[in-house]
Amino acid sequence: MLTVLTLLITVVTVSAQVVFPDDSAQIRHLYNEALDHGQSYENLRYLTSHIGARLSGSPQAEKAVLWAKLKMDALGLDHVYLQEVMVPHWIRGAKEKAAIVITGEPKISMDVCALGGSIATAGKLRAQVVEVRSWKELDEKDVKGKIVFFNRAMNPEELETFKAYLDANDQRSTGAVEAAKRGAIGTLVRSLTLSKDNLPHTGAMSYDDKIAKIPSAAISTNSADKLSSELKLSPNLTVELEMGCEQLPDVKSYNVIGEIRGSKYPEEIITVGAHIDSWDLAEAASDDGSGFVQTIEVMRIIKAMGIHPERTIRAILYINEENGNRGGLKYAETAKLAGENHLAVIEQDAGGFMPKGFRIEASPQVVAHMQLWQRLLQPYQLHILAFKQRGIDIVPMKNIAKALISVECEDQRFFDIHHSAADTFDKISRRELELGGASMVTLVYLIDKYGL
Amino acid sequence: MLTVLTLLITVVTVSAQVVFPDDSAQIRHLYNEALDHGQSYENLRYLTSHIGARLSGSPQAEKAVLWAKLKMDALGLDHVYLQEVMVPHWIRGAKEKAAIVITGEPKISMDVCALGGSIATAGKLRAQVVEVRSWKELDEKDVKGKIVFFNRAMNPEELETFKAYLDANDQRSTGAVEAAKRGAIGTLVRSLTLSKDNLPHTGAMSYDDKIAKIPSAAISTNSADKLSSELKLSPNLTVELEMGCEQLPDVKSYNVIGEIRGSKYPEEIITVGAHIDSWDLAEAASDDGSGFVQTIEVMRIIKAMGIHPERTIRAILYINEENGNRGGLKYAETAKLAGENHLAVIEQDAGGFMPKGFRIEASPQVVAHMQLWQRLLQPYQLHILAFKQRGIDIVPMKNIAKALISVECEDQRFFDIHHSAADTFDKISRRELELGGASMVTLVYLIDKYGL
Repeated sequence: MLTVLTLLITVVTVSAQVVFPDDSAQIRHLYNEALDHGQSYENLRYLTSHIGARLSGSPQAEKAVLWAKLKMDALGLDHVYLQEVMVPHWIRGAKEKAAIVITGEPKISMDVCALGGSIATAGKLRAQVVEVRSWKELDEKDVKGKIVFFNRAMNPEELETFKAYLDANDQRSTGAVEAAKRGAIGTLVRSLTLSKDNLPHTGAMSYDDKIAKIPSAAISTNSADKLSSELKLSPNLTVELEMGCEQLPDVKSYNVIGEIRGSKYPEEIITVGAHIDSWDLAEAASDDGSGFVQTIEVMRIIKAMGIHPERTIRAILYINEENGNRGGLKYAETAKLAGENHLAVIEQDAGGFMPKGFRIEASPQVVAHMQLWQRLLQPYQLHILAFKQRGIDIVPMKNIAKALISVECEDQRFFDIHHSAADTFDKISRRELELGGASMVTLVYLIDKYGL
Repeated sequence: MLTVLTLLITVVTVSAQVVFPDDSAQIRHLYNEALDHGQSYENLRYLTSHIGARLSGSPQAEKAVLWAKLKMDALGLDHVYLQEVMVPHWIRGAKEKAAIVITGEPKISMDVCALGGSIATAGKLRAQVVEVRSWKELDEKDVKGKIVFFNRAMNPEELETFKAYLDANDQRSTGAVEAAKRGAIGTLVRSLTLSKDNLPHTGAMSYDDKIAKIPSAAISTNSADKLSSELKLSPNLTVELEMGCEQLPDVKSYNVIGEIRGSKYPEEIITVGAHIDSWDLAEAASDDGSGFVQTIEVMRIIKAMGIHPERTIRAILYINEENGNRGGLKYAETAKLAGENHLAVIEQDAGGFMPKGFRIEASPQVVAHMQLWQRLLQPYQLHILAFKQRGIDIVPMKNIAKALISVECEDQRFFDIHHSAADTFDKISRRELELGGASMVTLVYLIDKYGL
């Protein structure tokens, strides 16, 4: 790699205007193929309308696995196969109900949904509520026998909404364990969105086998604001919560993998992927229907343009990103066992909006090598970003692949719909979606050509 | 200005990390005000739902003028006033109809709408159709007594959709004159959008008083594709077109202007604005409801934060951008007559999506001066762009103001909805809208502080 690197640096220094002339033309062709003949949008229309929500373990998830295999088969790849994965099977049951009860007043119903993985309430759970906005407050307040209401909002002043999300996510992921440790009997968690509306946003929560399991629900931001203001007037109000969700035995499912073998260095693998599964409240066009169809599009474009990569390109559609990451773990475990040589694993799980670049988690040398491509990416408004990548599926590939890479998209709209009933096809722009696929195939092309 | 410039350059050179520390903090405050307390979105909700479409000369346009004045009055500015403008008054009349007629087959109805300014058909216009995709083809084909079907699509390979729009716009703006010169009796123009759907997109067309006026309609991209393919099978097919639009006498309307007088250099004026009027097919949330409410927001933020600008800040809501630019012309004419000293006129007419920066049309010195602010804008993903600006309203200020500036927004979604029935409130993201207002007030702040 160092020789190539040195060469590239020299070229850049000598003549900034004429670097990679062939690459410029080839990338333009890749983009034209996506913009003129892209199939991501129509595939997404099919996925969302004919299959819909596809929570791990559900019949729709299995339908999505089969459809993914069918789409890959149709591309004429060198090898398409299923990788068996046992996945959790959690079901929501009937629509959840919740209400604020204040003595002498009519009940005020709230918009709630069970967080993924939560246990049910045994009939109706009714208890007093303690609002907390920090872990410190949780320590200071008496929550024994009560429902803890985690009401720390995502920071609206943070320009990068993904960061605001990650900063507030601890309430949802570990809130139930921390509350139960202190004797609480349930949790309500403010929905992780910057929007003020009536939609509860679900997402994964977890239990600790050594700590009592308590029911855990997401509450819409409007309901959270309502509950908070009612608590100021009536600190002793109670909340009724009813959820029928259930954790069933694990079921067999699959990662779907399609491969084009490298002509020169077949043992060097470049993986590009996204996740099949989704939450159950909507057809999940954005998370991650968009990455799903863009991954297929990467392979379609390579085949349609008659490109014969030197390295092995592998497209993977992971199962179970949302509540277990069993697909990602299985892929990494298999790669490790087989002693495979992975250059890069790329994931697109950023919502299908306007692509802005790539977050590269790799050695400084690898990042510097990729930054030399910046000039080629500029016309497409893409940037090489030396930031921690954000794909859950590819985290297990750390120390296996040289670079972990996630696609970065414009994210102002993402959390308005994320994990909620609003994650629907109409929120996705055809052009933004096709440009995302084009950005991914461009990165694959460059890594294939120059290695890492 | 040169002294300031030299000073700034020195600072940048000496220590790139600590430039403008006060400005950094102040800009952060401006953004926080917009993100925490922004009113653009709720104002846009009101404008679109209570007033709606507001074509120049319509009762809704007048309602919008009054509402704009009311909103400005409520801000406690130094001076709010109406600037009288006579505007064209074109009305659509009943919904237009069009169909493809092929002998022996059922009629195929098409989605059409009159282009703004078109004359009506006298009853039903029925004629053969000649498809052209270039001006050369128009010259080569016999169009006498026929309807010219301008079917050159916007270029989908162009990343900058605004450029693709401008490149195809000549068909709509001058097609009727060019067709009539060659004896045609009507035109159908492919809608200016990159979307494939059933929505006709209207927009301005013009006549030449020396050339016969012929009816001119926009046709949805799906109808255009249909007509084109039917023409291949039946070159002699006819089209029926019925439009009842009418040009009524000009009516009195107004620009709405609100001013904060400068404390130190009151004679130096910085204007920020957008347009009140819209086309008539939708509530026009994007074009230009977004700029409308963001302009008001700029002044709200300045007042809310207790900023006392050194120069005079003027917010203007122009009337009649869409079909005449009478508001823009009136503002410039008045400024010229009064011998006003204009530093910059800023327009936001880019759709209310994620702001990406500012297109600056000014001397190289002024552009270089503003590029020194790049570091301050970086955290907000904004760029100073030395490109031709794109606000129609501010074109007449050329040679009057030192800089003409238009806000640049992410534009992949813009032309899907532009001038069509799809330009509705639900297409706008609250955060993108509030960030746009924040970007505008930031630019005003910097020009006020450093001059041009």
